[in-house]
Amino acid sequence: MKQHKLLNLPSIRRLPSYLQVVKTAMEEGKEYISGTYISQELELEAIQVRKDLALTGIMGRPRMGYPVKELINAIESFLQWNTDQYACVVGAGNLGQALLGFNELKKHKLHIVAAFDVDKSKIGKKFHGTEVFSLDEIGKKIKELGFNMAILTVPQESAQETAEILADNGIKAIWNFTNIKLKLPSDIIVQQEDLSSGYAVLSVKMARFS
Amino acid sequence: MKQHKLLNLPSIRRLPSYLQVVKTAMEEGKEYISGTYISQELELEAIQVRKDLALTGIMGRPRMGYPVKELINAIESFLQWNTDQYACVVGAGNLGQALLGFNELKKHKLHIVAAFDVDKSKIGKKFHGTEVFSLDEIGKKIKELGFNMAILTVPQESAQETAEILADNGIKAIWNFTNIKLKLPSDIIVQQEDLSSGYAVLSVKMARFS
Repeated sequence: MKQHKLLNLPSIRRLPSYLQVVKTAMEEGKEYISGTYISQELELEAIQVRKDLALTGIMGRPRMGYPVKELINAIESFLQWNTDQYACVVGAGNLGQALLGFNELKKHKLHIVAAFDVDKSKIGKKFHGTEVFSLDEIGKKIKELGFNMAILTVPQESAQETAEILADNGIKAIWNFTNIKLKLPSDIIVQQEDLSSGYAVLSVKMARFS
Repeated sequence: MKQHKLLNLPSIRRLPSYLQVVKTAMEEGKEYISGTYISQELELEAIQVRKDLALTGIMGRPRMGYPVKELINAIESFLQWNTDQYACVVGAGNLGQALLGFNELKKHKLHIVAAFDVDKSKIGKKFHGTEVFSLDEIGKKIKELGFNMAILTVPQESAQETAEILADNGIKAIWNFTNIKLKLPSDIIVQQEDLSSGYAVLSVKMARFS
């Protein structure tokens, strides 16, 4: 399997929080924002903020900071969040339904245009405005609706099998919310979302700082 | 606000995936597991695996690898996942309900013993076996049930206010699933779970590797 490894992973993970701080500053009418201000808002070291933001190609101006609009553009452009992206949710259980209603993704131009399930009682229903189709129809719906990304929220025992169906039907990227490490052809991009990772960090913080 | 900063954050985030690989090896009857095997399963560099696992205090044995049982104990002990931990979910919407049914947390000895909401239509209901109480009752329930951690899944507009209620009633740690940066007394430990971070990583992978 080809490895899709990124350098600067922790920096990339922090960029959305910068974006939020800078967008709030813009709403408050600010034209410039300093790295120090961002670092205080997010409880990071100022040098870390400068290093992370340099990834996007932007440099702050002495005594002025970063121009707010340019900074937003730089972050969004680096993340490709200035381009509309279309996806489906596969598995319309509680987590799938929660993601269908998660407006944050729409702000980043990720549009969830369909949901899929194998449970007949869910097919035809709408959750937060998005219709659930039978998984059998995914090939047809990909052609109709033009998405190439899937958010996988099925039970873990059907994760691998479902992911193979997605890959066979032309899905190029899978955001995997199951705890199964998927084995897929090397051209499929997978990002695993592991809630246990967050709990691991919280657990260590509780042990160290309580 | 006091900063609860951890060194080795990416390593800590990876420990749960190591734990899963090693537990699978134990179920398969293996007594030793090599760093190379773990690195292949998780598509990491072998040196990274050795470095991450060294955090827990364990060292591999030449030509043998890591003893499976000791490795599980070392990781669980480092994460404090060998001790029962009790928590509540605050906000019994789709995401809260999904977390109530997320068995992975139980495997790590995190027991969700109550849910809270302000929506009267939810109070008294059970989701995945856990009862929803009125948020007004949280102080009483903390005394009765003995939890000190809250998983915050309320809408973002009530996140800060709800977090203050939790802190006032004796909650010591908040796993924050809202996208609001909470402002709380320095003795409250907060871990923010930002789904946008995962989407940022996926977006960059799609841009680089598609």
